[in-house]
Amino acid sequence: MTPSALLDHFGVAVSALSGVLAARGKNLDLFGVIVLALVTALGGGTIRDLLAGVAPVSWLSSPELLSTIWITAILGFFACRRFEPPLPVFQLADALALCAFAVAGTRKGLLLGFAPTIAITLGVITGVAGGIIRDTLTGDVPVVFRKNTFFYATAAFFGGLVYCIAWKLLEDEQATWIAVGSSVVLRLGALRYRLSLPAFESGVVSGRN
Amino acid sequence: MTPSALLDHFGVAVSALSGVLAARGKNLDLFGVIVLALVTALGGGTIRDLLAGVAPVSWLSSPELLSTIWITAILGFFACRRFEPPLPVFQLADALALCAFAVAGTRKGLLLGFAPTIAITLGVITGVAGGIIRDTLTGDVPVVFRKNTFFYATAAFFGGLVYCIAWKLLEDEQATWIAVGSSVVLRLGALRYRLSLPAFESGVVSGRN
Amino acid sequence: MTPSALLDHFGVAVSALSGVLAARGKNLDLFGVIVLALVTALGGGTIRDLLAGVAPVSWLSSPELLSTIWITAILGFFACRRFEPPLPVFQLADALALCAFAVAGTRKGLLLGFAPTIAITLGVITGVAGGIIRDTLTGDVPVVFRKNTFFYATAAFFGGLVYCIAWKLLEDEQATWIAVGSSVVLRLGALRYRLSLPAFESGVVSGRN
Repeated sequence: MTPSALLDHFGVAVSALSGVLAARGKNLDLFGVIVLALVTALGGGTIRDLLAGVAPVSWLSSPELLSTIWITAILGFFACRRFEPPLPVFQLADALALCAFAVAGTRKGLLLGFAPTIAITLGVITGVAGGIIRDTLTGDVPVVFRKNTFFYATAAFFGGLVYCIAWKLLEDEQATWIAVGSSVVLRLGALRYRLSLPAFESGVVSGRN
Repeated sequence: MTPSALLDHFGVAVSALSGVLAARGKNLDLFGVIVLALVTALGGGTIRDLLAGVAPVSWLSSPELLSTIWITAILGFFACRRFEPPLPVFQLADALALCAFAVAGTRKGLLLGFAPTIAITLGVITGVAGGIIRDTLTGDVPVVFRKNTFFYATAAFFGGLVYCIAWKLLEDEQATWIAVGSSVVLRLGALRYRLSLPAFESGVVSGRN
Repeated sequence: MTPSALLDHFGVAVSALSGVLAARGKNLDLFGVIVLALVTALGGGTIRDLLAGVAPVSWLSSPELLSTIWITAILGFFACRRFEPPLPVFQLADALALCAFAVAGTRKGLLLGFAPTIAITLGVITGVAGGIIRDTLTGDVPVVFRKNTFFYATAAFFGGLVYCIAWKLLEDEQATWIAVGSSVVLRLGALRYRLSLPAFESGVVSGRN
């Protein structure tokens, strides 16, 4: 399997798992959980491909990607009915999906010939898209827009930036895993030490019509 | 009118109607209702076309489809202001839209040369997309993700599967209506007899950050 | 700068600003605000391009558009932390974004050779898309679907209609600004004088499953 295909499988699997974990407590049936896992896992890549003009979108010609998602969703569903995974499992799956998609989006953007700033922007949007779709559909405020996001979109941006630099210096495979690894460390470190960028204070609210 | 065009007009009309019915109690004005009917009715076909690389999307070259939606939305709006349609009318319109789009999505996927598993996945996503967009926009939890979904996504999957099988044995038109009919019966039967797939129990909830 | 490019920059800037203003009180960090500004500002144009088959979407080849959004979002973020902008500033930015995108969408539709009815429909959907995405992501009911929308979608429709007529009689630049101006006046006038189209009364609500 090429590094690119591996990254895609890894991304959709952890992303599907985050979809299953987000489905807990919503009383979804098995099929609803699978649909949620599918849109969470494929949403990022779909948006990336549509924006970049890759059509039909790439997962339509990758039945293996769909198999990965179905298997992850079904195993995850029955595992979660049996065991109660602690909160960090969700946070880890979500961070891995965020960073894997951010790097994959940046990488595809560069391969298609876009400038690094465009490729990184594409990567950030791709990285946060899966979680936004998942949380919007289950009626939660998307992680990226919650209080105390602790370097969420920032980690996606950082992953894309590291990839753009490492790509010039190293081989593709190394660059990919360094970028994914360092951005996951940034995200989990920020969660652990509760680091944040400046934010709107909650006092500054006013009613909108 | 070809069976395919008929299915499209049928799908957008019942889907637009479900949009109008979902708008009740939200205090939308006439134009807001028409916009909601448009995105509900065109959302499924648009996602299908975008994913499959059909661009410009097919409704842009079908002013008749738009006319069907506008007329349904305006008539529906004034009818609903006058009469209070009972809940089953909404459920029926929603089930018909779900199954018509699921079969239409599967059919188009097969015509474009995708494998049956891909075509059915495309059909399921297409079928549930209209309702997801409608419910997300009006601030409801999408039907597909609600408690006791009673074979919602499952009916879409079943419609696609029946079409894939019937398509090999029968003429296109017969296959289409058998698939739509049997999946609508499955959905309405499951609603009537309150049949469900296994679900996450509500006890298994834990807070997420 | 051509009138078309100017309209695009103007549209994304006011749209990004409406994203920043909508972010107040949600405790987003700087990056979350930038992401919200990006999806609000680019959502309309992206949907327009995807529907019309323009791929890759046009902002991928316009780093200047992205710069306009980043700069607007960062300046807006720090300005809003310092000053409390009154409600009408949000309403004005939102109305300008609505009408600029509605006219730009209609214009692009006509340039691509679609019939006026299709072009206007495309314009309306494009115009309301930015605000719908922004409000859905921050957990608000989209402006277009709120009580007392005061000619919201109607103003987008009016802008597209005026453009279609003015385009036959005048030069493109004049037609553009007349259409944007008159639809903004309609929207702000309707807000000021609380004009509305007929709406579903709130009494006509019934529970849905």
